[in-house]
Amino acid sequence: MNGNVKEFHLVAEPVERVMADGMIARLWGYNGQSTGPTIEAIEGERVRIYVTNRLPEHTSVHWHGLILPSGMDGVSGLSHPGIPSGKTFVYEFDLVKSGTFMYHPHADEMVQMAMGMMGLFIVHPRDPAFMPVDRDFAFLLAAYDIDPGTYIPRVAEMTNFNLWTFNSRIFPDIDPLVVNRGDRVRVRVGNLTMTNHPVHMHGYDFEVTCTDGGWVRPEARWPEVSIDIPVGAMRAYEFNADHLGDWAIHCHKSHHTMNAMGHELPTIIGANKSRVTDMVRRHQPGYMPMGTAGMADMGEMSMEIPENTIPMMTGWGPHGPLEMGGMFSVVKVREGIAPDDYSDPGWYENPPGTQAWEWTGELPEHASNYSPKTILTPPGGKRLG
Amino acid sequence: MNGNVKEFHLVAEPVERVMADGMIARLWGYNGQSTGPTIEAIEGERVRIYVTNRLPEHTSVHWHGLILPSGMDGVSGLSHPGIPSGKTFVYEFDLVKSGTFMYHPHADEMVQMAMGMMGLFIVHPRDPAFMPVDRDFAFLLAAYDIDPGTYIPRVAEMTNFNLWTFNSRIFPDIDPLVVNRGDRVRVRVGNLTMTNHPVHMHGYDFEVTCTDGGWVRPEARWPEVSIDIPVGAMRAYEFNADHLGDWAIHCHKSHHTMNAMGHELPTIIGANKSRVTDMVRRHQPGYMPMGTAGMADMGEMSMEIPENTIPMMTGWGPHGPLEMGGMFSVVKVREGIAPDDYSDPGWYENPPGTQAWEWTGELPEHASNYSPKTILTPPGGKRLG
Amino acid sequence: MNGNVKEFHLVAEPVERVMADGMIARLWGYNGQSTGPTIEAIEGERVRIYVTNRLPEHTSVHWHGLILPSGMDGVSGLSHPGIPSGKTFVYEFDLVKSGTFMYHPHADEMVQMAMGMMGLFIVHPRDPAFMPVDRDFAFLLAAYDIDPGTYIPRVAEMTNFNLWTFNSRIFPDIDPLVVNRGDRVRVRVGNLTMTNHPVHMHGYDFEVTCTDGGWVRPEARWPEVSIDIPVGAMRAYEFNADHLGDWAIHCHKSHHTMNAMGHELPTIIGANKSRVTDMVRRHQPGYMPMGTAGMADMGEMSMEIPENTIPMMTGWGPHGPLEMGGMFSVVKVREGIAPDDYSDPGWYENPPGTQAWEWTGELPEHASNYSPKTILTPPGGKRLG
Repeated sequence: MNGNVKEFHLVAEPVERVMADGMIARLWGYNGQSTGPTIEAIEGERVRIYVTNRLPEHTSVHWHGLILPSGMDGVSGLSHPGIPSGKTFVYEFDLVKSGTFMYHPHADEMVQMAMGMMGLFIVHPRDPAFMPVDRDFAFLLAAYDIDPGTYIPRVAEMTNFNLWTFNSRIFPDIDPLVVNRGDRVRVRVGNLTMTNHPVHMHGYDFEVTCTDGGWVRPEARWPEVSIDIPVGAMRAYEFNADHLGDWAIHCHKSHHTMNAMGHELPTIIGANKSRVTDMVRRHQPGYMPMGTAGMADMGEMSMEIPENTIPMMTGWGPHGPLEMGGMFSVVKVREGIAPDDYSDPGWYENPPGTQAWEWTGELPEHASNYSPKTILTPPGGKRLG
Repeated sequence: MNGNVKEFHLVAEPVERVMADGMIARLWGYNGQSTGPTIEAIEGERVRIYVTNRLPEHTSVHWHGLILPSGMDGVSGLSHPGIPSGKTFVYEFDLVKSGTFMYHPHADEMVQMAMGMMGLFIVHPRDPAFMPVDRDFAFLLAAYDIDPGTYIPRVAEMTNFNLWTFNSRIFPDIDPLVVNRGDRVRVRVGNLTMTNHPVHMHGYDFEVTCTDGGWVRPEARWPEVSIDIPVGAMRAYEFNADHLGDWAIHCHKSHHTMNAMGHELPTIIGANKSRVTDMVRRHQPGYMPMGTAGMADMGEMSMEIPENTIPMMTGWGPHGPLEMGGMFSVVKVREGIAPDDYSDPGWYENPPGTQAWEWTGELPEHASNYSPKTILTPPGGKRLG
Repeated sequence: MNGNVKEFHLVAEPVERVMADGMIARLWGYNGQSTGPTIEAIEGERVRIYVTNRLPEHTSVHWHGLILPSGMDGVSGLSHPGIPSGKTFVYEFDLVKSGTFMYHPHADEMVQMAMGMMGLFIVHPRDPAFMPVDRDFAFLLAAYDIDPGTYIPRVAEMTNFNLWTFNSRIFPDIDPLVVNRGDRVRVRVGNLTMTNHPVHMHGYDFEVTCTDGGWVRPEARWPEVSIDIPVGAMRAYEFNADHLGDWAIHCHKSHHTMNAMGHELPTIIGANKSRVTDMVRRHQPGYMPMGTAGMADMGEMSMEIPENTIPMMTGWGPHGPLEMGGMFSVVKVREGIAPDDYSDPGWYENPPGTQAWEWTGELPEHASNYSPKTILTPPGGKRLG
């Protein structure tokens, strides 16, 4: 604090981000980070934010969702001149509402956001009794197009990204969300990619309680299991952590839980590659034909891959390979987690009788009589076909 | 039923799906089907579901939207080991809420869903007086990339799909939704593609009453004519069938009501191809130049097309070609349909004076004076230009 | 008016649209325009709309969102025969609800909408005291794929559009939204592209009050700063213009505020092109190496570009280049704007002390001590990493 003003300093600069063990991206960010540091303050405070530009071109900072004077809005050329390389500018304004916001450049915007410049800006309610929670998680969704073996995103890409991240991290190296049973939990998510991301969390129903426009009145809330987060929007959802377990949380677009891969691969499911395999093995004895039975084998094998990349499907759980990547993590709900403890408690042990098990007996007659071609007729219902 | 437990048997296996007359896809599904059979049960019941894996790789079943023990959640490697080829696993849990859910693999997920593995799971309320309807339709949205002349989806494709389906069926071979006038109608739709689909129904306003998170409180509902269905989400909407007629229902993304086509075609609208046509006809007398005046001629002509595909725009209605494909069907509201009758009643006959008609007279003077370049000025309004 | 019927005449025909100064598109539209003229009428009125087809193929008009007889619904082949080239058809129906609707063809629909055929249809409430506003803006979102140097959209394109428009106009030649301080303002937006567009307006929170399904009850509304507009849907949002200034309004997908560009460009950020530059300059003295420090230089320079295109990033504000294009405009809130005045008031002058300023002194110690690597710990919170 400087008198009545809370001060921050953001340095826009090139950064190295370890996206996952074995994969470094050369991005642009703030204070050595991408996603930049989370700014937090309290409703009613006045903030003064020094922004130093160490990039090779001008920049600016737009305070997305905040109500502030037109000259502090950070649209380069419109609100104020861009911040030249090497210079420091000051933004100063009152925080007139609480909620979940973000900051990002509004100068050479497509490039600078594609390079990773973004951060969270959280304003806590002045009244601590308003919408209190026990656990409060936050992340931004960002997408990059970095060819395996390279380090810098292709900034002109519009749709065909190959790295889908939470805070510029990819599975399996995204933190788990560790929660004590009974906690009231808030998850705040913002989207600065080029497409909607439906964030799906297993094991629970929940409701959006806050957007970057403000708090959602209770009677307007919908029950959901996937929160579709528009581009340029924040959604905070809440739930009571009543169900113990390891619960996947991920974008439900299946390619967004993959790491870098070629989207133009032909399908060889069902192909017989044994003759080709024989031929290749004469020259390369370890050759493995892959993909003829799906791609799950890629989650289990260790193959040579290019420098600076990680497999498209990877990660191991307590029961084998997870075959995931990108926007995926696990919500871990346990008994007896201390209030400030976010450390990984390991994998959940399913109580006896609550885990899917192998059946080796005969199938009950009525089940094996269940006709493969029959559609159950709903009472008064119809499945289109 | 086996004692107090309702039992089902799903067999994950390769299937052949007739997407439309003349177009077969070789997919993976359940019990010979893709989309798999619809599972229906009643809130409060306990279900036991045997899952046999006849695929060449391991699989699992995630019960999307249901509240259940962590070990029954079907995330391969996290909840339990994947189900190996040739084995049967058992899932067992209580149905603690009613609503509209789905099931799909969470093992080699991108591949297995791209191959068509998915099904509906509907839990009816324990109280039959809760939200009753007269007609209850359900379908899942799935997208495939199958080159004309081939049979198996390219599973690595991320955005450039060419077959957009309701329950793995394409227009013109999707069932109509047959409804008796005055019926309360529910339509349940889930999305397992890679993009939002706005399901647009003509002739009515309606409201979403249920998501895979649960029932939407009445005061939170919005009036809509297009329900934007996020990926990994279900939406059930309802309406009173008060308006007789044939009403289109379709995804409003115009390419999603096309069948397989090349998205990279150049535009030749306005081109004069008569000289080229003369030249080609010397060698191929039946040659037709197409596309110079739009593409509607493709909906009317019968051309040679590759084996195992159907035209990109097709279908005939009572008044000529429909020029549609993919995610398109018709809601047929009629008088006197019996409660269990879903058979096609044929086309609607518009009562006299209610069908757009040709005008052969002079245009009224005030209408022909209507200046082509003028924009009507709204009271206090402005159209951006 | 013709008796008790309000008459309109739409002529479907090829049009030339100046998308921006220096860029003409050859589209199909209505009455010489794309977007076509806005139809306005009052709830309870009966309308008769003559539609003349001057296109080289048949067409039809679907009245999206309106409740009307099945035979007036405009689905070619289903509701009525398509309107042949050279013919005029009549549509006639009662307006039974007020709201924000649109019209577009339902014949060779993909092609005809990709060519620009669409218009707004606004039905004002019968009761002028219902939801009154002081300013009422309206536009449709349309996307085109027109290669630089050419004039006609590629109609087969599904995702890779390069021109993103409000009413077929692109920044910098989209009208500003001029507003008097204190006005109640409505902005109506419809989407006929192939993807969601989150329309983000700076400086304000606001709520959606109307969709093409009808008016949204107050208790169901959400506070937003970006309205995610689904394809085939309308959203009208409202706000009280209490904050003076120049406020950006734009689609928040960063590529949608660019004009035509190559999405496949490699990234050369950080590359040293000085040696290459020396070589090229021996032959072409004015050669400028670009992109090694981001792309902002493209917003400032005047380069030779192909005929009939405009730069991908362009526009100047009061404080320098805006580096924008496509779906971007400015909401200008001022004191003393007359009720019927929509003329551009010029740029806003920020009052003293309300504009971000350069800091040339030392940074306060506590700010420079702010560790680049530290994440502020929220009270009970966690940023995923």
